[in-house]
Amino acid sequence: MTHILVSEVGPRDGLQSIDRVMDLEAKKRWIAAEAAAGVQEIEVGSFVPPKLLPQMADTAEMVRFAKGIDGLTVVALVPNAKGAQRAVDAGVDGMSLPFSMSETHSRKNLRKDHAEMVVEIREAAAIAREGGAHFAVGLATAFGCTLEGAVAEDQVVRLAEQAVEAGAQELGLSDTTGYADPAQVRRLVRRVKAAVGDDMLTTLHLHNTRGLGLANVVAGLEEGITTFDASLGGLGGCPFAPGASGNIVTEDLVLMLNSMGLDTGIDLDKLLQVRAIVEEALPGEPLYGFTPDAGPMLDYKKRIAR
Amino acid sequence: MTHILVSEVGPRDGLQSIDRVMDLEAKKRWIAAEAAAGVQEIEVGSFVPPKLLPQMADTAEMVRFAKGIDGLTVVALVPNAKGAQRAVDAGVDGMSLPFSMSETHSRKNLRKDHAEMVVEIREAAAIAREGGAHFAVGLATAFGCTLEGAVAEDQVVRLAEQAVEAGAQELGLSDTTGYADPAQVRRLVRRVKAAVGDDMLTTLHLHNTRGLGLANVVAGLEEGITTFDASLGGLGGCPFAPGASGNIVTEDLVLMLNSMGLDTGIDLDKLLQVRAIVEEALPGEPLYGFTPDAGPMLDYKKRIAR
Repeated sequence: MTHILVSEVGPRDGLQSIDRVMDLEAKKRWIAAEAAAGVQEIEVGSFVPPKLLPQMADTAEMVRFAKGIDGLTVVALVPNAKGAQRAVDAGVDGMSLPFSMSETHSRKNLRKDHAEMVVEIREAAAIAREGGAHFAVGLATAFGCTLEGAVAEDQVVRLAEQAVEAGAQELGLSDTTGYADPAQVRRLVRRVKAAVGDDMLTTLHLHNTRGLGLANVVAGLEEGITTFDASLGGLGGCPFAPGASGNIVTEDLVLMLNSMGLDTGIDLDKLLQVRAIVEEALPGEPLYGFTPDAGPMLDYKKRIAR
Repeated sequence: MTHILVSEVGPRDGLQSIDRVMDLEAKKRWIAAEAAAGVQEIEVGSFVPPKLLPQMADTAEMVRFAKGIDGLTVVALVPNAKGAQRAVDAGVDGMSLPFSMSETHSRKNLRKDHAEMVVEIREAAAIAREGGAHFAVGLATAFGCTLEGAVAEDQVVRLAEQAVEAGAQELGLSDTTGYADPAQVRRLVRRVKAAVGDDMLTTLHLHNTRGLGLANVVAGLEEGITTFDASLGGLGGCPFAPGASGNIVTEDLVLMLNSMGLDTGIDLDKLLQVRAIVEEALPGEPLYGFTPDAGPMLDYKKRIAR
């Protein structure tokens, strides 16, 4: 049975995109409940300046709490070397640094061009290595950009190589803007894997802006992707990419993967119950997903026992 | 460039599942506008007894109107031989008869068991052949049933063979209940094709009940499926399968296929404008889809020119 890692990014990507600050205790209940449902990796926050994103101000506290949960891999987003140091200090298992393939988006999002980003990645990678934390680079806007439009695949491949050379231990392709289509996913995953090695590109971070999120997961599975980011209730998006909304929904992703006979290790019933925690803490905040309404198929248990 | 046929079933599957009867003139405007957007096949109605489904009472009139639209393939659903005769009399290009793989669903939906259905298919096929109309059989509830749960794949294969033997010129697999997952789609398409011949199974009719609709399309494409049913705005479902709601959304499907570089012949901008006709004729009726809100990607025209 193929193991697929579902990495919950709601506490980071979801919460950073809404205006309200979620109560720390509620956040803790959320991730504890997801871990109890079998989720093995959670991105608990982002080490960005609290002035920029007050929603993420308690990330160090979240890391410390999450590290107490048995068997959970605790990751955080870091925008730069300074963030990497804070992440190491907090004790993360791993960190992910977003490297935007669209230079316009990179300048706007992190105020750095590509060359400056590679310098930052090198420095952050060294800090992570020294701190014993796993260091991943997420190739953001890899499938297109709401500011630039198309992003050349040659450019993604070239920058992926530079990220690895600068110290990335693992790469992800991020559809920050909800632009990816399944043919493009297959093509780009194949090209990047060919350039940096099969085991180096493990992760897809997909948004469901145009409803193609799970279709793109299928394309990724075909190309050997083994980790998918998702957000409970589809909470979130990218505040710096106008029009881009909503990670793929963890509940729907887990239903699909489990039904397909893939091993996520996640109990769907327990996962569905976690929504209540988020709903209670963020009343009125829209949550997405089809499975929460429809429920699993009658023969769901038979499917997953296969 | 691979041609994929998007078959619009909203005027049948969509409208039969809502309580209101859509005005005939609005229906005509709807299908004329979709044909003008490049849609090449439309299921314009169902030859069921008008007492059962008053929404479909004007199907013969719809067929006559649709036949006047240049280049459009006009199909209708028929539940039995009597319906097939009415379809021939009205002048359809083709008809599709649903054959439910779940015997419980078959009895409930068409009041016939499997053996009786095969008799009906044989009779309807003969009528269609004599009338010069194409005759397809849709293997309904092929991926599972809200009444029975799992439907054995061996049973689907066996009944597919019987449908062909009884005169079906073409088969479709229908996920009437929104149960399909992508691995199951690949497996079942492959098995049925192996049994009845590669060219005999052309069509997938998918619902989006659990959000997996487009993911299942990707699986179907991988297995050589060339026709996908869809409903504008995701209108519809199966009134006899409790909990089953909503065909896949034509707009999202076309965005995906076009972006993938597949040739649907459909102009997405024009297609998106058709929604206004349905919205005006059925005020307050929920329409679905992500593309109508998000719009195509900035580089969409570049993608389809590929």
